[in-house]
Amino acid sequence: MARMLIAAEADLRRVAALDASMVDCVEQAFVALAGGRVVMPPVLRLDIAEHRGEVDVKTAYVPGLDGFALKVSPGFFDNPQRGLPSLNGLMILLSATTGLVQALLLDNGYLTALRTAAAGAVAARHLARPDATSAAILGAGEQARLQLAALTLVRPITRAALWARNPARAAAAAAECAARLAIEVTAAPDPQAACRGADIIVTTTPAERPILSADWIVPGQHITAMGSDAGHKNEIDPLLVARAGYVADSLAQTRRLGELHHAIVAGLVPADADLPELGQVIAGTRPGRIGRDAITLCDLTGTGVQDTAIATLAHARLLAAGIGQTFAT
Amino acid sequence: MARMLIAAEADLRRVAALDASMVDCVEQAFVALAGGRVVMPPVLRLDIAEHRGEVDVKTAYVPGLDGFALKVSPGFFDNPQRGLPSLNGLMILLSATTGLVQALLLDNGYLTALRTAAAGAVAARHLARPDATSAAILGAGEQARLQLAALTLVRPITRAALWARNPARAAAAAAECAARLAIEVTAAPDPQAACRGADIIVTTTPAERPILSADWIVPGQHITAMGSDAGHKNEIDPLLVARAGYVADSLAQTRRLGELHHAIVAGLVPADADLPELGQVIAGTRPGRIGRDAITLCDLTGTGVQDTAIATLAHARLLAAGIGQTFAT
Repeated sequence: MARMLIAAEADLRRVAALDASMVDCVEQAFVALAGGRVVMPPVLRLDIAEHRGEVDVKTAYVPGLDGFALKVSPGFFDNPQRGLPSLNGLMILLSATTGLVQALLLDNGYLTALRTAAAGAVAARHLARPDATSAAILGAGEQARLQLAALTLVRPITRAALWARNPARAAAAAAECAARLAIEVTAAPDPQAACRGADIIVTTTPAERPILSADWIVPGQHITAMGSDAGHKNEIDPLLVARAGYVADSLAQTRRLGELHHAIVAGLVPADADLPELGQVIAGTRPGRIGRDAITLCDLTGTGVQDTAIATLAHARLLAAGIGQTFAT
Repeated sequence: MARMLIAAEADLRRVAALDASMVDCVEQAFVALAGGRVVMPPVLRLDIAEHRGEVDVKTAYVPGLDGFALKVSPGFFDNPQRGLPSLNGLMILLSATTGLVQALLLDNGYLTALRTAAAGAVAARHLARPDATSAAILGAGEQARLQLAALTLVRPITRAALWARNPARAAAAAAECAARLAIEVTAAPDPQAACRGADIIVTTTPAERPILSADWIVPGQHITAMGSDAGHKNEIDPLLVARAGYVADSLAQTRRLGELHHAIVAGLVPADADLPELGQVIAGTRPGRIGRDAITLCDLTGTGVQDTAIATLAHARLLAAGIGQTFAT
């Protein structure tokens, strides 16, 4: 009889938070991905149009780690009308040597939110100017807040402007971020105003048409686009994708799901363009920012290696802290 | 706070078995698949070559059912050396309207074994001669035994011959099946001998080269091939696939993963051949067996609709019986 550990979201919140160790964990995941020995199949995606639902399943095997995660991410966009969150999900950690389930991490998307925010920190650490002090955040959801918090972990951010379609939500998010991070955060009246003077711009929306125009961008800025994880999503002007120093989390994914996809469709970037991945930039095998005046763009679609990395970290911490419930299988 | 049901393998064995209701359940799944409104993405597959491991993830949304399953099937082929079974896994049942996890069915592959065997019964019910009394089973594993049991549910089987590479395992499996099913079951010295005089032949091996030759097959026989669920697996002589009255469980899958794949690669069947699916035969919209002397072949790769169907059935029975553990998420 085998045993597995089951952890609820509350358990996971006790052992994992957005902090420097989480950023390092996700950074190492990208390095592993760039090393070429990771096995990461294409995302499995199920669409349930009649209920405005979708499910993504991601996984990756990282040599050297004892386990690998299978991450199930449902998004059902009528849920708020039922008083339920749109995003949910869980991670299953399996042994990389036996395939047995080691842990069920019933995180309701919490670990995904952390590893996504941590990827934003990793992107800024390796692509933004070292002395970046100002940020623009487009969007006012959970990731908007987390991405700003993530930037403060890696750059000396002192002020930020936040824009969202709904001005009331933008104002509330700005106030909350200001209080939590102890920096100046203002709500901007439009996205162009938010981006003006920002050293780092992070887009965090589910937009299906660009919300960031190439015309607004000035030398030295870094952009992280983390909203697009499906072919129909598009936050960034394809012209900007073509002009900027482009870096993918996973080129195989961004060609199909990311901002790059739209630049390819528009004929602005060749489909087989050999663009750098974040892990290569971290490892130093490909250039990232090539000067103070460069414009850099990191296209994050979310990768299975991040899930495997954070699930492994969370599992180790649960075991060390004696948190969670064991279940005989 | 939401609640989910967690059921262990022992719980599932109490509520689900290979019986007529299970065959009907899987039959309805194939009918739904043929109806064209099912959403069934391609199988996600992760290979971990250095540990001789693989994981398949299958899913399907079936309109009209409250939930849909995500089925995780690891196969790690060095496990027997560790005293562990090669195959494991679990099913996650999610609400089709909210995406919330309704149940975790920690079946270690038990439900998969049942729904796979039930598909064999469905294939025989709609493709084998009604008066089929004899069977040949190639393979001696769990599915070999279950497939023979499944045939007895739908056809008046009185005798069977079983062949496997390992004669001792074949003899043991034959003896066990004879005792359990109260029919005559003998171990055959070679696959050709096993198939001689059989009305129904079922192949259940992980063979990567054909074990069933087209030359051995005579008019009236029905073949179900259920061993191939990956592109490198191949049990059936491609010539037989081309000649027989061919039926797929899912044509999209058998073109990539099934016996059909090898017949296409060999140039014996056009890649875009419009071949019938089992659900269409059940529904009567495409012909199956066109006469007593026809040779029929059903190519089973295993489909997400079967998983959704059996997970839904098992969940309903667990709830009705008050079996399983609820877990706050």
